[in-house]
Parts: sequence; structure tokens; C-alpha cells
Amino acid sequence: MIKAGIVGGTGYTGVELLRILALHPEVEIAAVTSRADAGKRVDALYPNLRAYIDAVFCEPDESRLAECDVVFFATPNGIAMRMAERLLASHVRVIDLAADFRLKDATVWERWYGEAHACPQLLGEAVYGLPEVNRAAIQTARLIACPGCYPTSVQLGFLPLIEAGLITVDNLIADVKSGASGAGRKAATHLLMSETGESVKAYAVEGHRHRPEIVQGLESVAGAPVRLTFVPHLVPMIRGIHATLYAELKNSAADLQQVYESRYRAERFVDVLPQGTHPDTRNVRGSNRCQIAVHRPNGGNSVVVLSVIDNLVKGAAGQAVQNMNLMFGLDEATALETIALYP
Amino acid sequence: MIKAGIVGGTGYTGVELLRILALHPEVEIAAVTSRADAGKRVDALYPNLRAYIDAVFCEPDESRLAECDVVFFATPNGIAMRMAERLLASHVRVIDLAADFRLKDATVWERWYGEAHACPQLLGEAVYGLPEVNRAAIQTARLIACPGCYPTSVQLGFLPLIEAGLITVDNLIADVKSGASGAGRKAATHLLMSETGESVKAYAVEGHRHRPEIVQGLESVAGAPVRLTFVPHLVPMIRGIHATLYAELKNSAADLQQVYESRYRAERFVDVLPQGTHPDTRNVRGSNRCQIAVHRPNGGNSVVVLSVIDNLVKGAAGQAVQNMNLMFGLDEATALETIALYP
Amino acid sequence: MIKAGIVGGTGYTGVELLRILALHPEVEIAAVTSRADAGKRVDALYPNLRAYIDAVFCEPDESRLAECDVVFFATPNGIAMRMAERLLASHVRVIDLAADFRLKDATVWERWYGEAHACPQLLGEAVYGLPEVNRAAIQTARLIACPGCYPTSVQLGFLPLIEAGLITVDNLIADVKSGASGAGRKAATHLLMSETGESVKAYAVEGHRHRPEIVQGLESVAGAPVRLTFVPHLVPMIRGIHATLYAELKNSAADLQQVYESRYRAERFVDVLPQGTHPDTRNVRGSNRCQIAVHRPNGGNSVVVLSVIDNLVKGAAGQAVQNMNLMFGLDEATALETIALYP
Amino acid sequence: MIKAGIVGGTGYTGVELLRILALHPEVEIAAVTSRADAGKRVDALYPNLRAYIDAVFCEPDESRLAECDVVFFATPNGIAMRMAERLLASHVRVIDLAADFRLKDATVWERWYGEAHACPQLLGEAVYGLPEVNRAAIQTARLIACPGCYPTSVQLGFLPLIEAGLITVDNLIADVKSGASGAGRKAATHLLMSETGESVKAYAVEGHRHRPEIVQGLESVAGAPVRLTFVPHLVPMIRGIHATLYAELKNSAADLQQVYESRYRAERFVDVLPQGTHPDTRNVRGSNRCQIAVHRPNGGNSVVVLSVIDNLVKGAAGQAVQNMNLMFGLDEATALETIALYP
Repeated sequence: MIKAGIVGGTGYTGVELLRILALHPEVEIAAVTSRADAGKRVDALYPNLRAYIDAVFCEPDESRLAECDVVFFATPNGIAMRMAERLLASHVRVIDLAADFRLKDATVWERWYGEAHACPQLLGEAVYGLPEVNRAAIQTARLIACPGCYPTSVQLGFLPLIEAGLITVDNLIADVKSGASGAGRKAATHLLMSETGESVKAYAVEGHRHRPEIVQGLESVAGAPVRLTFVPHLVPMIRGIHATLYAELKNSAADLQQVYESRYRAERFVDVLPQGTHPDTRNVRGSNRCQIAVHRPNGGNSVVVLSVIDNLVKGAAGQAVQNMNLMFGLDEATALETIALYP
Repeated sequence: MIKAGIVGGTGYTGVELLRILALHPEVEIAAVTSRADAGKRVDALYPNLRAYIDAVFCEPDESRLAECDVVFFATPNGIAMRMAERLLASHVRVIDLAADFRLKDATVWERWYGEAHACPQLLGEAVYGLPEVNRAAIQTARLIACPGCYPTSVQLGFLPLIEAGLITVDNLIADVKSGASGAGRKAATHLLMSETGESVKAYAVEGHRHRPEIVQGLESVAGAPVRLTFVPHLVPMIRGIHATLYAELKNSAADLQQVYESRYRAERFVDVLPQGTHPDTRNVRGSNRCQIAVHRPNGGNSVVVLSVIDNLVKGAAGQAVQNMNLMFGLDEATALETIALYP
Repeated sequence: MIKAGIVGGTGYTGVELLRILALHPEVEIAAVTSRADAGKRVDALYPNLRAYIDAVFCEPDESRLAECDVVFFATPNGIAMRMAERLLASHVRVIDLAADFRLKDATVWERWYGEAHACPQLLGEAVYGLPEVNRAAIQTARLIACPGCYPTSVQLGFLPLIEAGLITVDNLIADVKSGASGAGRKAATHLLMSETGESVKAYAVEGHRHRPEIVQGLESVAGAPVRLTFVPHLVPMIRGIHATLYAELKNSAADLQQVYESRYRAERFVDVLPQGTHPDTRNVRGSNRCQIAVHRPNGGNSVVVLSVIDNLVKGAAGQAVQNMNLMFGLDEATALETIALYP
Repeated sequence: MIKAGIVGGTGYTGVELLRILALHPEVEIAAVTSRADAGKRVDALYPNLRAYIDAVFCEPDESRLAECDVVFFATPNGIAMRMAERLLASHVRVIDLAADFRLKDATVWERWYGEAHACPQLLGEAVYGLPEVNRAAIQTARLIACPGCYPTSVQLGFLPLIEAGLITVDNLIADVKSGASGAGRKAATHLLMSETGESVKAYAVEGHRHRPEIVQGLESVAGAPVRLTFVPHLVPMIRGIHATLYAELKNSAADLQQVYESRYRAERFVDVLPQGTHPDTRNVRGSNRCQIAVHRPNGGNSVVVLSVIDNLVKGAAGQAVQNMNLMFGLDEATALETIALYP
């Protein structure tokens, strides 16, 4: 059994990790930390876990975490970078669901996250945990930087076009709609039901932290500078991301449907929908899947890609477990074979 | 023009007062206070008010408030009782939308509100601002205690039966469902969209502050002790209260529809629906109305009353303006003739 | 492998059965019928099932269904009663998720369902599929009448009190709130998002089909006539039922928490919450669980029981599979060990 | 008093017209037609209108409509074009809220609306009722084609940039999110609460009827062919449209904020928000306003415009009344001075 620790178990990604790992046949949950709720039973906070998780939140004690085989950081940004090095030294593998190790360039990280990076020496080693791109590297990694939720949906949507050299990359647009759980479980007025229900708004149009992450990922595939306009929106639902992606085709003869189906044929968690259809975010809710449809409106040179995920599963905890499965030589889909709840 | 001040203008009842008063032909908004947001334009926080309210939040400065004709307290509990006496001394009329003056017995107040009452000497004078019961007293009042949202819906629902002596009052049940805005605009985890969307829960089954207020109101009409089981629920919507009320008939021959229609025929803001129908909360959303239907399932001795209001209008700001209109000799419905938004 | 047929696979209970059975290790889906969608792939209608269900909707052909080991009816009322007898004659076990075999008295059935019963001769044999009451009978049954969603939540909530003789049964009240999926997947104006979003309403206060079913179940335990006022409400969410139950205690010394915990200690799918807590419907969403809390407000003689289920799982498809597991000698929880999605 | 008739009073735009006109000081509602509900009281279907509308739905009888001063068509597409000519001949002014007279080219109309146009001879005379563009023509018009909801939000957003010649018009993108009421009050499975709640989806990516309407409007201003990619989305709310518009600047020195403020300074119903802000759809819910913000992410050559309206007010019934006010020489804002409901 893999002994797993979870640092920051009281946020939405933490409890989602618990939901998945509780039914993972190869994992034993060894520690779930939470400064704020140390001493409380996990299932007192999260009654959906009653009978499945028999644990008590503990302080984030390094000696206890050092006995784990793997530690997940489901924390705010800035925590994992302060603890990862010592855990790695204790032969613990580390999977960070926050942003600490996502950007290769510490300078860029510091600009967007507002503090000096505490562990730049590990940025080179950290593997960006998008299995559809980095599977081999993940299998041997000690330190995984799990992609953000927006970056997962946007990169999976654009990758086939860029890999095949079919689009110009100097004018990409990603118009992305997210449910409220993407903002986390924090007491903030603007996330109240009364504020986010029955309303749609864009935010951070001038710049969002996930943009450099997406650009870094796309450029590494494109081998050229990528210019991306990224506009995130908050929509009145709890889970789900819908990315609507716009690009201009260079090669108007390409069979886009075929390009996507070939690219993702072997992928267990990327599902290319039939031509002419439109994905619903609900059809991936609670599942680790990305569903994608590719369109070419009016047969012109514009391509529109629709890509949906559950921000807490493929966009966070599910993808983290997918990475763990790969790192430990398990079937990649272990504990992730769940079907989205409909309706 | 009536010069109105609003203390605590940044909460939901405060901004709802602004929405109503902005279009009131006899009112001039003289001061809107907010400690937290002093110096900011009101319409920067609330862009729905742009072009309708040209004001800046100010500190709750008593000398400025003392120049008003009327001051509304749209504050948390415990503020109005510390300022009311001096305002009254300056000949300002005071309308408290919080709970400070609702209970006649300071001891009961202290048990439920957790502190000593700062102004018990005014509890006797304060008029409970339910116009359908206390209209005459309101017209001459200096100090109004606006009813709570739950108490408004429950009392308007039970009153005709109790006034007519038709039910036993030792086993009343009020099962009430409220939208999230009833809990106010405060940064609390349990009020997040992700927590209150797509879920229903009861709360405070062991006891809720509005129960003594309801009981006080019903007993003053019944002239006898009332035993009430009151269970509030949080439902996934923003505005609206649906009270489902249960009682046992003493007199099984009564024509209940007729009793309700007679009782409320002259009331502008209580609308008895046709026999056999069921009110929707949306049909009063944004309006100052209470819609009521009365049922007698299977022709038995049980009576079921359905009573709906918008918690922020008839349950708070609208009722406060209705009181103000009465106090200043205006048509009771001034600025309150709005039609609920459907759908 | 158990060969399972599903009649009426396009409704919400049908697709939920498919979601559960697709991951059931002992079941093979042999036929999924739908008159309206015959010839279409199941996953074209329900893309959440892609890669999990490789089937095409077929006509409800009896010879094909006769080859199954078990046939589920996820149909409107009135279908199963016309097909059950021939299937039973072919040694097929039948599980009806609709109402055809729930009421023992054909006369009562006809009054509430508006047509003559087509198969009254099987009403006696049919077992009411509430495992917490009828487990032994279910294990040997050929024909199961799955309880309705409201009746499941209400009966599980009241049973411990009635079995222990703790309450008077001549004045029970069940105030129940349901999400919109309880009304099924039918094109009806009143079920539109624009009609049911942001609103709460009671309905069928004069009488609802589930009331005689609940009364029948409670009376069989009480051994005495039960008088029940049942008021269903529609609330703006998709899945979930919250039953709020009111009764009067005969014996005020009883330890209610202990009564409930004892009654349900051995039940895998009924979870009695700690004293003083309140269940949320979301904590059972997607799971086969009923979570229950019992309260005694103000220490008086009234008891308030809060009981929540997912109407499509424990209230329909999950309970149907629980019955099937029992009928075929499998572990009762097979394929039902899923954890509710939070948030 | 203006005698107004409404054809098709039972849809969402019809009941919204009634809500607005009921409080219009210069309008008397002379007829409200509905084939399906003829004979029923209007307020029996729409209890929010009780005491405000004392009318009964009638058959769409032309002689009765011919006595009106103005007739609104709140019907499905294809009705107004069969009745308009005779009404105009009776000196009735006609305001069509459907699409019959929006497109100048009957051939284009027929391609998108699937039938021959019944009245092409009036297409030239019909005035496209976007007051911010066509105010003078509206004032003297006999026949108004009210813009669609998507076209209103998109055109108001793009117009200042195109009029000022600041963007290239051969690669415009409009990513638009609509609440469910935009699809109307029709019994359709895909519009159920259970289908549209908690989910986001794009639709009609290959082509939507509103695209030619938008292109026609933008080209008439641009004086050049416009290439537009238009992707509509359904989001889980009832009212509101959020248009996110993307274009490339030709002139990077322009002060975009100033351009928008100048363009709309005199417009009562277009509100340019302060620089750097983001509109919420809720801030225009129930009001006739369009709120707009203009952004230039990262100071580059891309411009992002955010434009929100209430699809039933500025996107339909409110705009229709704004047109009527202009046609009859009234203050353009009569009966439209309502403030959006927040929260």
C-alpha cells in the first residue's frame, strides 16, 4: 500500500483528493493536515466521507509527512515550495496541486505570485504533470507540478492543432467559463451564493496567473512565441470549466476531426466527441475526463475548439491521482473510473 | 422632501433600501454610512445604482445623521440600540431593520442576542413595524422595529386563523425555506455558492432567534400561550422565503378562503391567492408583496398555509419604506409599486 | 454474469441505472429499450456514458427481455403492470421503479393513478423494495416494487419512532423538499430552468400519490391508522430530497439519538448523524445513502427528524440495484460504494 | 392614452412587456392574445401581475387589434409577417419582437428561418429598432423590427470601435453567454432545470440565426464586409447575456475608454463602466441597461469588450417599449426607469 499524506486537506481540492483516494485500492491515507482544523475528525467537516475516511486532521508535521511514500499539497500557493526539498530528501515523492512549481522561470513566477520563490533550485527538476504531454517524465519524477484547471482545459484543447502545425500561434484566444469552486473554499464576499448565483462576469481581463502557465505549455510544443488572449469568466455553477478556443488555420485542407481523434485515441481521459456536437460541462462532472469538440464555423479558416473538464477532478485532484498512479507504476486509471453524474 | 439617512449601507438590506429610496419621489438620501467603505462611491460598490444614487459612503457620524428626518439602521444587531436615543432626542425618526427593538422583554433579547441590551428604556415605546397589525401605532411612532423576514412571512400566514379563533395554538408548526440573501452579505464559508448551491439543509432546529419574535407576535393576538415549532431551511436561491404553516382547526365548518380574503381585502401588500393554488416565491421577487394560499388537505382538520415574501423587500427594506410612508403621512405604497420579475 | 434489461432507458432513473450498472462487476447490460430513441446509441444521448456503455436503444421487445435474468422498469407508471406477468413466466425477475406494484390495494391505486390496474393478481406477491424493512422478503422475491423517492425519505425517517412506539401516529407531518429531477425528464413548461430556478413552491397540497404509499408503509409498522399531512415542495436544485418530519412524543424520557443509532447500526445505507447536526442534501448526492438527524427542539415533546437522500439513487436507481444485489445473493453494496460529490 | 395590443402574451417577452406596460403612465392595454390560453385571466397564469393587469387572454382577432394604436408581436418567428400589412393599413403601428423584419434580404431570411418570407415588400420600410443607431428613423416609423438579444449586446459592444475605424473587421469574435430565458417559454427537454442547471455548453457553433443580423448591423456601420465568428453559450441562470468581444486594433494609440464614453454619453440605456472594471449580468437584471467595459489586455493590440444586458429587457421587451416611446413622442425612458435587482 502506498502511504499518502495530504497537506491542506480542508480545501476543495483536498476533500476531492480524499474522495478519490478513499476508494483507491493501493492507497492508505496516512496523514491529512490542516492547521485551522487540527484535532477535528475529517468526516465531521465533510459528512460525505463518513465511513470512508477514519482520520483526524493533524498539524502539518514534517516528521509525520516524511514517513509517507507520497505527499500531496492541496494548499494555497507558497506552501509546497517551503516543504518540498526536505520531503524529497526523505525519499517522499511530492505532488503539488498549487502553482509553486508550474513555471520554469522563477522571475515570471515572482511577478505573478507576488513573492520571491523559496525553492528555485527545484524548478528544473519539477515535472509538469499533464500526462497527455509528459507521461514518460512523470513516471520517473520525484516532484510533480499539477497543472492549473484553466491551463488543463486550454492546453488539451489547443495541443493537437499546434503539434500538427495547423494554426498560427500569434493570435490565440481562450474564452473560459468556470464554476465557483475554482476559486476555492475561502470566505470571500464575492464568492457568496448571493453574489455569484444568477450572474456571469469576466474577471482579470488585464492579466491572470494562469496565462503564463498556458503560454509556457503551448510554446514548448509550438517552438515559437505564442500570443494568447485569455479571458476567464465566473458562471453560476459549482463545478466545471468550459473553454472556448479560437484560432486561425494555416492549412485549410486539414481534417480536424481526424487530427483530434488520432491525437487522443490512446488517452483514457481525453474524449473527442463526434463531429458537430457540443460538450456540456455536466457530462464530465465528478469524472477525470476532458471532452472536446472541434468546429470550423461556416467552413472557413477559423477553428473553434470546445473543451470541458471538472475543475476539481481533471483540473486538480483527479489529475494528481493520475500522476501518482503513473509514478508508482499502477494502471493510470486506478480509482478514476467514475462516470459523471447526470443529471 | 424627507431627508433620509442609512446606517450600514453596504449590506443587502442597505443596498435594497437604496434601490427603493432612489426612486421615491418624496425622499432625498442625505447620508449613507459604512465604516468599512467610507470614502468610496456607493455606485462603485453597487453598479446597479449608477446614475440613480450620487453618494459617497461616509463614517457613521451622529451629527450628520441628526440632521435627517429619518434614519434607517440596516446594520447588524446591536448598533441601533446604541444610537437611537440620541437621534430621537434630535427629533429624528428611527427605523431599525435589525433586531434591537423587536422583543419587548430585554431578558429574552439578551438570551438570544448574547449581550446586555444597551437601551431597554426604549423597548416599550418601539412599535413593531408590521403595518397589517400595527398601522395606527406606526403612523405616530418615533421608533420602529422592523420585523424579521421569517417573522413577517409566518405571522401574516397565521394571523387570520388566530384572530378568528379557528385553530388551537398549542401545536403550531412553521417549516420555512429561505434563500441565501437572508443570511446577509458577510464573508462566511458556509454561504459560498459552492456550499449553498444545489443543496438544501435545515439549521438551528434547536432554537432560532426569530422564534421568540414570532411567538410574541402571535401571543399578542391569541391572548394565550403559543407553542410553536419553527424550523428554518436554507435553499439554493438568492431571494425569497416560503413559509409552510401547519395547524389544527377547532372549527371544521369555517370557510378558510373567505376568512383570509376578508382579513386582507384592504391590505395593499398581502395578496390571498385563489383557492387551490400554490404561491411561488419568484412571483413576489423584488416586490413588497406577501402572497398567501390556504389549504385543508383531504378536507380534514389540518390546515396548511403557504406564505411567500421576498426576504429583502417585504421581509426588510420594502417593509421599512412602507413604515416610513405611514410615519410621514404618505400613501403607504409610494415607491413600492413594483411588479415581481418573472421569470 | 447477470443479464439485465432496462425498459425505459431514456429517463432520469434509466440513465442513473446505466451509470450504476455500467460499473457493476456482476452485471451485463443485455437490453436497453426506448420507443422514442430506438436505434440511437445510448452514449449519443448520454455522453457521460461514453466508453462505459456500448449499447443501442431498442424497441421494448418481449422476447429479448425474456432472455434476461432481471428486467428493470424505469418507465412511466402503467407499463410494468402490462409486461410483468409474462416476464415472470419466463423466469425473469422484475424490478419496477415506477408505482405499479407499490400499493397493495388496487382500488387505492386506481384512484391515484387514474386507470384500472392491469395486473391486480400480482399485487400480493410484489415485495415493497425497502431493504431496511423487507430484506428477507426481497432476497426471495420475483417481483419488486421499488419505493418512491418521497416515501423512501419519509419512511426511513419515521420508522424508528413508530417501531419503538414513541410517537402518536394520528398527527404526523412530512414537509418535503425535492429537486427538479424528481419530476423526471419530460418536456413540461413548469419544469424549465426559467420556471424552477430561483423559486420555491409547494404543490399537490390537497393530495399527492406518494401519500397513500407512505401511509401504507407506516401503518404496516404501526399496526394502527396513521394520519399524515404530506406537503411536497419543488426547490431550485437538480438532485436531492430533504424531508423534515414532525411528530409528538408519547414518551418524553426516550433517548432519541440512541433509538436511531440502534435501529440503523447494521444498515449500510442509512447513516445517523451525530446529535445536534443537520444533514445537507449535497452530502448524499450521487450516493445511495440516507443521512438522518433527530432533534427535540427546546427539549419539549415535539420531535423533528431530518432525512436526506438523492432522489435518483436511494430514491430510485440505487435502491433498485440494492434490491437486485439482494435478490441475486450478492453483497448488498456491490456497485453502490460511491461517495457523494462535494462541493 | 396609447391603446396597446400584445400578440402572443404568454411567452417570456410577452409577460415582460406586460410587466413594463402595466406601470406605463401613457399606455392602456387593450388586448392580449394567446391562442392556447384564450379565455383565461392573464394573472391566473402570471400571478406576479395580480392587481396590475385586469385582462383576459383573447384570440388573435384582427379587428380588435386594428383598433389599437400600437401592436407588439411577442410571438414566435413567422407570425408578424402575416399580420403586419393589414394592421399598418388600419393605421396601427407595429413593433415586432421576433425576427420577421430584422433582415433586409429576404433570401438570407429564408435560409435561416426555413420558410418563404410572407411579406418581403415591408422589409425595406421596417426600421431596425436599435435606438442608439436608428433613433431618428424610429421616431417616424410605422413598423419596427426589434433587435434580437444577442445582436443587441454584440452591436452595442462593437459599434464605437467600428464607427471610429479603430479595428480590423475581418476577424471579429463574439463569445456570448446567455441565460435560459433567451430560449423562450417552450416545453423542450433540453431547457429543463435538470438539463441546464449546473452546466455550461456552447451551441450552434456552425451557425446561428443571429449571426447574419449582427453582421448586417455591423456592416452598415463599417461600410465593408465583416467577418464574425459568433459562438453562443447557454449558462445556468435565468436572465442575462454577457458578450465577450475580441478584435484587433489598427490604431494602437487610441484612448478606448474615451471613445466609449463619448459615443454613449447621451445614451440613457448604455452605461460605460469605469476603466478596469468588469460588468456583472446581475447589475442589469430587470433593467433596460447595457453596461459595457473595454479592455486592452497587457497593453497590446487586442481589445476585449464586455457587454451585458438583460435579454428580456434591453434584449426584448424593454427595447420594444423604448421604441414605442420614441414613436409616440414620449420621453424615451418612460416606464423604463427601474433599477436592477441586487443581489
